Amino acid sequence: MTRSREQAVALDLADPLGPLREQFELPPGQLYLDGNSLGVLPRATAGRVQQVVRGEWGQDLIASWNRAGWMHLPQRVGDKIARLVGAGAGELVVADSTSVNLFKALAAALSMAREDRPAARRILSERSNFPTDLYIAESLAADRGFELELVDRDRLEASLDTGVAVLMLTHVNYRDGHLHDMAALSARAHAVGATTLWDLAHSAGAVPVDLKAEGADFAVGCGYKYLNGGPGAPAFVWVSPHHAGRFRQPLSGWMGHAAPFEFSPGYRPAAGVARYLCGTPPVLSLAALECGVDTVLAAEPLGGMAALRAKSLALTRLFAELVETRCAAHGFTLESPRDDARRGSQVCLSWPRGPAGGAFAVVQALIARGVVGDFRAGDGGGHPDILRFGFTPLYTRFVDAWDAVEHLRQVMEGKEWQRPEHSTRQAVT
Amino acid sequence: MTRSREQAVALDLADPLGPLREQFELPPGQLYLDGNSLGVLPRATAGRVQQVVRGEWGQDLIASWNRAGWMHLPQRVGDKIARLVGAGAGELVVADSTSVNLFKALAAALSMAREDRPAARRILSERSNFPTDLYIAESLAADRGFELELVDRDRLEASLDTGVAVLMLTHVNYRDGHLHDMAALSARAHAVGATTLWDLAHSAGAVPVDLKAEGADFAVGCGYKYLNGGPGAPAFVWVSPHHAGRFRQPLSGWMGHAAPFEFSPGYRPAAGVARYLCGTPPVLSLAALECGVDTVLAAEPLGGMAALRAKSLALTRLFAELVETRCAAHGFTLESPRDDARRGSQVCLSWPRGPAGGAFAVVQALIARGVVGDFRAGDGGGHPDILRFGFTPLYTRFVDAWDAVEHLRQVMEGKEWQRPEHSTRQAVT
Repeated sequence: MTRSREQAVALDLADPLGPLREQFELPPGQLYLDGNSLGVLPRATAGRVQQVVRGEWGQDLIASWNRAGWMHLPQRVGDKIARLVGAGAGELVVADSTSVNLFKALAAALSMAREDRPAARRILSERSNFPTDLYIAESLAADRGFELELVDRDRLEASLDTGVAVLMLTHVNYRDGHLHDMAALSARAHAVGATTLWDLAHSAGAVPVDLKAEGADFAVGCGYKYLNGGPGAPAFVWVSPHHAGRFRQPLSGWMGHAAPFEFSPGYRPAAGVARYLCGTPPVLSLAALECGVDTVLAAEPLGGMAALRAKSLALTRLFAELVETRCAAHGFTLESPRDDARRGSQVCLSWPRGPAGGAFAVVQALIARGVVGDFRAGDGGGHPDILRFGFTPLYTRFVDAWDAVEHLRQVMEGKEWQRPEHSTRQAVT
Repeated sequence: MTRSREQAVALDLADPLGPLREQFELPPGQLYLDGNSLGVLPRATAGRVQQVVRGEWGQDLIASWNRAGWMHLPQRVGDKIARLVGAGAGELVVADSTSVNLFKALAAALSMAREDRPAARRILSERSNFPTDLYIAESLAADRGFELELVDRDRLEASLDTGVAVLMLTHVNYRDGHLHDMAALSARAHAVGATTLWDLAHSAGAVPVDLKAEGADFAVGCGYKYLNGGPGAPAFVWVSPHHAGRFRQPLSGWMGHAAPFEFSPGYRPAAGVARYLCGTPPVLSLAALECGVDTVLAAEPLGGMAALRAKSLALTRLFAELVETRCAAHGFTLESPRDDARRGSQVCLSWPRGPAGGAFAVVQALIARGVVGDFRAGDGGGHPDILRFGFTPLYTRFVDAWDAVEHLRQVMEGKEWQRPEHSTRQAVT
C-alpha cells in the first residue's frame, strides 16, 4: 500500500517503463487521465504529419501513392497493430471508423451464419455495450431479418444457445471498465456454433489481446484511444484467416477490389482481409495513427503488452485504493471491477450520496484544477452517473494517481464542486 | 486562337483569377495537370494542420471537441461545400469516403423506392461510371433485391422507364471528362418517378453545380480532387431536404444519433442530413479539407464557380486546340467532349496509332519532364487507353497549357516515350 506521495514518486523511479513517457508531448499544467477517450500527442507526430503534408503531398503529389507507400498504409499500419492484438501479418487493415468496420464485420458474420446455420437468427450483445455498436447492429439486424438481443452482462453465458448467430461484444466496457474473458466467452459461443465479433476500442494498446488464441472470429478497434492516433484516427478491422476469404462485406469499394487500377465495372474482392477496405484512406490521419501505434510498439523491448498491463493494473489499483482511503469520508463507490482479471485500464466512481448532477460537477471541478477525467451520464436505472479516469501506462505515472486523488480530496473538502461554473453541462466525448 | 507562348502569357496577365494561384504551394519544376486526381497543397494547410496537431490536440486534448469545435466540423465544412454545389446551409455534411457515402445515399434512395414505388426494381447507371460507385451499387442491389442496369451513355435516356428506382450517375466522367446534363436527366428521371443520385467527385469545385435547381435528390462527392483537401480527404453527402428526414441510412453510427452523448442503447436518427454521419470524424484530415475548400471559396468575390468555369473551359479548349495543331503529326485523338457544355475540367487523348502500351509510355515520358498528367487503362473494347490532363482553374495557367503541349510535342518528336524506363507499369491513382 502506497501511503505517501514520496512512495508514489519512488514507484515511478523504479518503473522500467518510465522512459516511454518521453515519447509524448504532455500538456503542461494538466494531469491527463482521459487517454481512454483521446490519447495524448506523440512527439513524433507533428513532424511526421508535416513531412506528409509538405513533402509527400506538397512536393511529390500523386506520385506519393507509390513512392511514399500511401497505397499500402492501411496494411503497413495494420500489420503493426496486429502485433498488439495477437493477429498475424496481413490479417488486419486500418480503414474507416470503428462503426463502419463493425458494419462490415457484422454483415460478413451474418452472411456466414445464414449460410452455415440458417436457424440461428439472434445477434447477442450486452445492454451496456458502447451505443454505436448497438446502433449498427440494430440496423443490420433489421435489414437482414435478425434479432438484436441485449442482455445484462451476467446473463450473457446463459443466453448463448444455438439460436445465436453472432456474439458481439466490446472487450472492455467504456463506462465501467469491465474486461470480458474473451477466451471463455468465445469458447462458449463456439460450443453453440456462434461466431464472435469483438470490439477492441478500449483494449488495443491497453490490455493484452490474443485474438487467435482467444477464439475471436472478427474484431474491430479504435485508433484514437490507447493507440494515440489523434482525434478521429482511422479504425481497424481483423478477420480470422479462416473466414477472411469467404464473404464479401457490403461496403465493396474500390480499395477492396482485387485490382483497383483495372477499373473494371464488376466487383472482384481482394484476397483475405484487404476486401474489408472500401474507399481512399485519409492519409494525413493514417500517418498520425502510425506514429501513435509506434509509441506502443516501443514497449516491446521492455516486455510489451504484458509489461504495460502490469503497470496499468498497478496504477488503477493504486488510484482505487487511494480514493477509498484518502476520500473515504465523501462516499464514492468504486464502479470498475476490483478483480485485476476483470478490469480494463480505467477506474470509475459513482457518487451515490451526491446530489443530482453532483458527479458531473466534481469532474468539472477536477478539470478546473487540471485533472482531466470525464463524465458519463447514467441511465436513471441500473447505471449511475460515472466519474471516469483512464490510465495509459505509456505516459501515466504513479505520482499522477496520487496527485489526482489529492485533488479529488481537496475538491470534496473545499466543496469546489458546488461552484456554479461547474454545473453547466456540455457535451464532452 | 493562341498562336504563341507570349499570347498564353498575355492571357495569364489579363486573367482576373490569376492571383488565386498564390494560395498554393506549387511544387517547383512540375507542371501539374493532375488536380482531378489529387489537388495541390494550399499554403494555409500545413500551418492549420500543425495548429490542430500541436495546439488543439496536443495542448487542449479532449476539450477541443467543444472548445475548438471538432464536434461541428462535419457541418461547418459541409456548409462551405454546400455553397459550391447549390445546396443550403445545414443540408450537406462531410463524412467518411465517397464510397461509404454513396452506400448511405443509395441505401436511403432504395428504401424510398421500395416504399413509394415497389414495382421499380432497377438501379440505372452508366457502364463507364467510376468503378467504386458500381461496386457499391452491385452490393446494395444484391442485398436488397434490386437489379443494377449498366448502359452506355447514349442509352441512358431511353432506359429511363417506370421500372427504374434510382438513376445513379457521376456528373463528370473520370475517364473522358463527359459532363452530364444534370437538369435534363433529373427531369427525365422524375418524369418516370425515379430518384437521382449524383456523384460530384469531378464536379465540386470544377464546374458549377446547382443541386436543388437541377433536380438532384441525393449527392455525394470527393474532398481531395478539385477541393484540394489532401490525400484521402473525407468526402461529403447531401440529401434533398425533401427526403433527408424520411429514412435511416444503414450506417447508423453514434455521430448520426439525435443525442450522441445520451449513450442510449436504441438508435434515434438526428434530424435531417446529420443522420448521414456515422463514426468519429478524422479531425486532422477534416481540418486540411477545410483549408482546401477555402481556396475555392476565395473565388467568390471574383465571380465564384461561374468565373472558375469560364477559365476552366478556356484552358481545356486551348490545350485541346494546341494538341490538334502543334501535335497534329502524331495522331492523337481527342476523347473528351469538344462541346463546352458537355466537358468537365479535363482533356483526354487516346493514341490510336501508337503501339500497345504507347499511351502509358507517353504519360511516363511527360512525367519525366515534370509534366504530370495521368494514364487510365482502356478496356480492350469501346474504351481506349487514355492520357488524362486535369485543369484546375485556381492554379493552372494558360502558359501551363502551352508548355504542356510543347513538352508533348518534344516527347513525340524525340521519341522519348520509347525509352525503356517509360514502359514499366505501376499503379497510379
